[in-house]
Amino acid sequence: MRDLSPVTPEFAEQLGKLIGSENVKPAEARYLEEPRGRFSAAPTVLVTPRSTMDVSKVVTTCHNFRIAIVPYAGGTGLVGGQTKPDGGPSAVILSLEKMDAIRDVDTSAGILTAEAGVILAEAQKAADEQGFLYPLSIASEGSARLGGTLATNAGGTQVIRYGNTRDFVLGIEAVMPDGGIYHGLKKLKKDNTGFDLRHLLIGSEGALGIITAATVQLSPKPMEHVTGWFSVPDPEAAVDLLSRYQVDLSGLISSFELMNKLGLGFVRDYVPNVSLPTNEIPEWSVLVELGGGPGSNITERLGASFETALLDGLVSDGLVAQSSAQSDALWAVRESIPLGNRAVGAVSNHDISVPVSSIPHFIAEADAKVTSLGPVRVGAFGHVGDGNLHYNVFPQEGQSRDTLDHLRPAIKETVHDLVHAYHGSVAAEHGVGRMKVDDLEKYSDPTKISVMRRIKSALDPNGIMNPGVLFAAD
Amino acid sequence: MRDLSPVTPEFAEQLGKLIGSENVKPAEARYLEEPRGRFSAAPTVLVTPRSTMDVSKVVTTCHNFRIAIVPYAGGTGLVGGQTKPDGGPSAVILSLEKMDAIRDVDTSAGILTAEAGVILAEAQKAADEQGFLYPLSIASEGSARLGGTLATNAGGTQVIRYGNTRDFVLGIEAVMPDGGIYHGLKKLKKDNTGFDLRHLLIGSEGALGIITAATVQLSPKPMEHVTGWFSVPDPEAAVDLLSRYQVDLSGLISSFELMNKLGLGFVRDYVPNVSLPTNEIPEWSVLVELGGGPGSNITERLGASFETALLDGLVSDGLVAQSSAQSDALWAVRESIPLGNRAVGAVSNHDISVPVSSIPHFIAEADAKVTSLGPVRVGAFGHVGDGNLHYNVFPQEGQSRDTLDHLRPAIKETVHDLVHAYHGSVAAEHGVGRMKVDDLEKYSDPTKISVMRRIKSALDPNGIMNPGVLFAAD
Repeated sequence: MRDLSPVTPEFAEQLGKLIGSENVKPAEARYLEEPRGRFSAAPTVLVTPRSTMDVSKVVTTCHNFRIAIVPYAGGTGLVGGQTKPDGGPSAVILSLEKMDAIRDVDTSAGILTAEAGVILAEAQKAADEQGFLYPLSIASEGSARLGGTLATNAGGTQVIRYGNTRDFVLGIEAVMPDGGIYHGLKKLKKDNTGFDLRHLLIGSEGALGIITAATVQLSPKPMEHVTGWFSVPDPEAAVDLLSRYQVDLSGLISSFELMNKLGLGFVRDYVPNVSLPTNEIPEWSVLVELGGGPGSNITERLGASFETALLDGLVSDGLVAQSSAQSDALWAVRESIPLGNRAVGAVSNHDISVPVSSIPHFIAEADAKVTSLGPVRVGAFGHVGDGNLHYNVFPQEGQSRDTLDHLRPAIKETVHDLVHAYHGSVAAEHGVGRMKVDDLEKYSDPTKISVMRRIKSALDPNGIMNPGVLFAAD
Repeated sequence: MRDLSPVTPEFAEQLGKLIGSENVKPAEARYLEEPRGRFSAAPTVLVTPRSTMDVSKVVTTCHNFRIAIVPYAGGTGLVGGQTKPDGGPSAVILSLEKMDAIRDVDTSAGILTAEAGVILAEAQKAADEQGFLYPLSIASEGSARLGGTLATNAGGTQVIRYGNTRDFVLGIEAVMPDGGIYHGLKKLKKDNTGFDLRHLLIGSEGALGIITAATVQLSPKPMEHVTGWFSVPDPEAAVDLLSRYQVDLSGLISSFELMNKLGLGFVRDYVPNVSLPTNEIPEWSVLVELGGGPGSNITERLGASFETALLDGLVSDGLVAQSSAQSDALWAVRESIPLGNRAVGAVSNHDISVPVSSIPHFIAEADAKVTSLGPVRVGAFGHVGDGNLHYNVFPQEGQSRDTLDHLRPAIKETVHDLVHAYHGSVAAEHGVGRMKVDDLEKYSDPTKISVMRRIKSALDPNGIMNPGVLFAAD
């Protein structure tokens, strides 16, 4: 790839002439930072096009002048994909925030067509108003925008039932790195007409183009819900319990979350207005959510299942929510774990996955290895049904995070090497971004890396699209 | 792309030295034909490697000598993807039939790892023996091989519950056009590490490489089943009924099939040993299959739902199978429709999809237009929940197919133009192959075609992989 040029005032002016000067401004500070504070960008220009055609004009111009583009959605990403660090030629930040229209809800087929700047919670609301469920639920849904969830193939707490983002997106519209518009807003469940560009672009983290809109298959809202919260002796029991539920409660499981004692302790100690369901926090807890149609008797069936599991030693204690308020209270605990974690401050965070059946062994082995590296302790929670753990390492009580900062590289390498040994993924649901570029190179199949590079060069020969993401910056 | 060279006896001998001469033979006649008889290949060499490494050796050599490869699985494809027609330099036929090992069944997580030469029915059996369901069911499952189902992203009768092939495949192993092996047999449900090569290769019809093995997420076998067969007044009632079931029977619908009168009449008249469930054949019939866990009461709930639908005029008659034998008998009728159709002989077949909510209008408009073209009648059946119809046009009674052959181009164009107007797909589940290359070019988004060509050139610069599929042969 050839050298990129920096953004100049003249270039900004030119963009302003193309799409309106009110849509080309100096970027405010918040666009130059990301939530974990690992990357920060130099001051540059923020471009906020109002239409797909305007995105195309901006990209075409950047392509012709070899100027880099960093696509920006809600800014909630945790791997630095939205922040090109200072150094090298500056990049245009292209935010989709003004493209926030919900273009259509097809209430007969339950298909929502929305622009990439729509905030996830707004899309959920639009679906709900028509009696449907937008099948993505993530902690940052109040500020994340659809474009970001598409670019990173967001996962979350309902993947066990509805899949990752790519699994419920029927079609996309995107601007390719040369400015060409891909009109692919299909509403089809079966469409075998050549290479699947939708899946190529979803999860490509802005390196192959900018997704500007999507058609999303909504789900019918389950009419009955029930939430259970159980103490389990260990992760193996949790995996066994899940296998059993997948047979006994076939088609009805919406979430199945595992949490260890440490994370729930942080919630109790540091998150106000959240009450834990038990006085004593057990070593391991499971939250299960079921959804079914009228007459599916899920509350009774979950209760009966709990009794059997109790006899078999898979659970030791627990409760089944008797109202939606109780259910909300249980979910509030689960969703407060990241807050509690942030209050304490982790030495190192890991968004990893392993095959579901390997979770118990992985946790045991990782805990032993990590705690041998220094005075640290492990907070693990995640989506067991997806084999996805947020495996976070904290200072032991009385230790400060700052004094343990030097341990981070060794902890990270230990965890990631073990994940790799278990044939897992070191970037399960948050993506690679800029943070894990070295990991991608280190742990990926070499043929995959080579194919990725060839596709990148073929579609983005000037290397303008989000440079430094996925691939090391030149 | 540069010119390809023909297969010579010397080249065949060289391949024999690489992978064993017993694995390089003249291709028998059956490898040179395809089921619909539209394409036939000139005599050439059949290569049957026994391992992924041997596939890699063959592909590397073909790449170096610029010799074309036609990948061959079960040979059941309906669009000519497995048959390069006579004319131009000959190609090696690479059959995966000797790579038929089921490498592993992970019974804890329900994940099957199998080679591409495994016959689909064998994979179903292996899953069943461990208490799981292989979530693909298609008419040709007794002879189709997994490699073909992967290369074409096969659909079938259970897509409404389990998705298309790409939706339940967790990982693949593949040999790329330069012979490089992509080791991607992941068992992960969440893995956001770069471009998704799995989805790029699935459905690429052999144009980007050869899938040699896959890891498949099996499903827990529903413990309770029920099959219903209902008369509906029209396709609109069928779509309404489906919407209602998706709420009332949330998570439990495995199949929802629509059949018109003509196809069932052909079954009655031409397929021996199959009994229709009703004496009179209604204009439209629906077959619905539910599966749930113990206590899901699906038989009762389907019965109750039927009573309500009867009152609302969505169904006029019907039965709920009271035994698995009765259920099998109903499915036998549905699965005999292609046999009946073949006995009569269609003037033109169309594997198309439109948005589910457009099905009623599409059928009405297509029927009117097609029957105005000549003395023909329409047999339509398919997977309503997927918006996928097999829309087939037959001679009117007393007319012969041969005398109407000249109508085929006009019929095809009429149907495909209408599908396009409804934002549908002219290649819903069978793929493009060689049969629909012109349609792909005509109806696809130009940016998509351009991106596809660039990816093809980047990964297969010599153009050896299944030339003539998806793209017009040079």
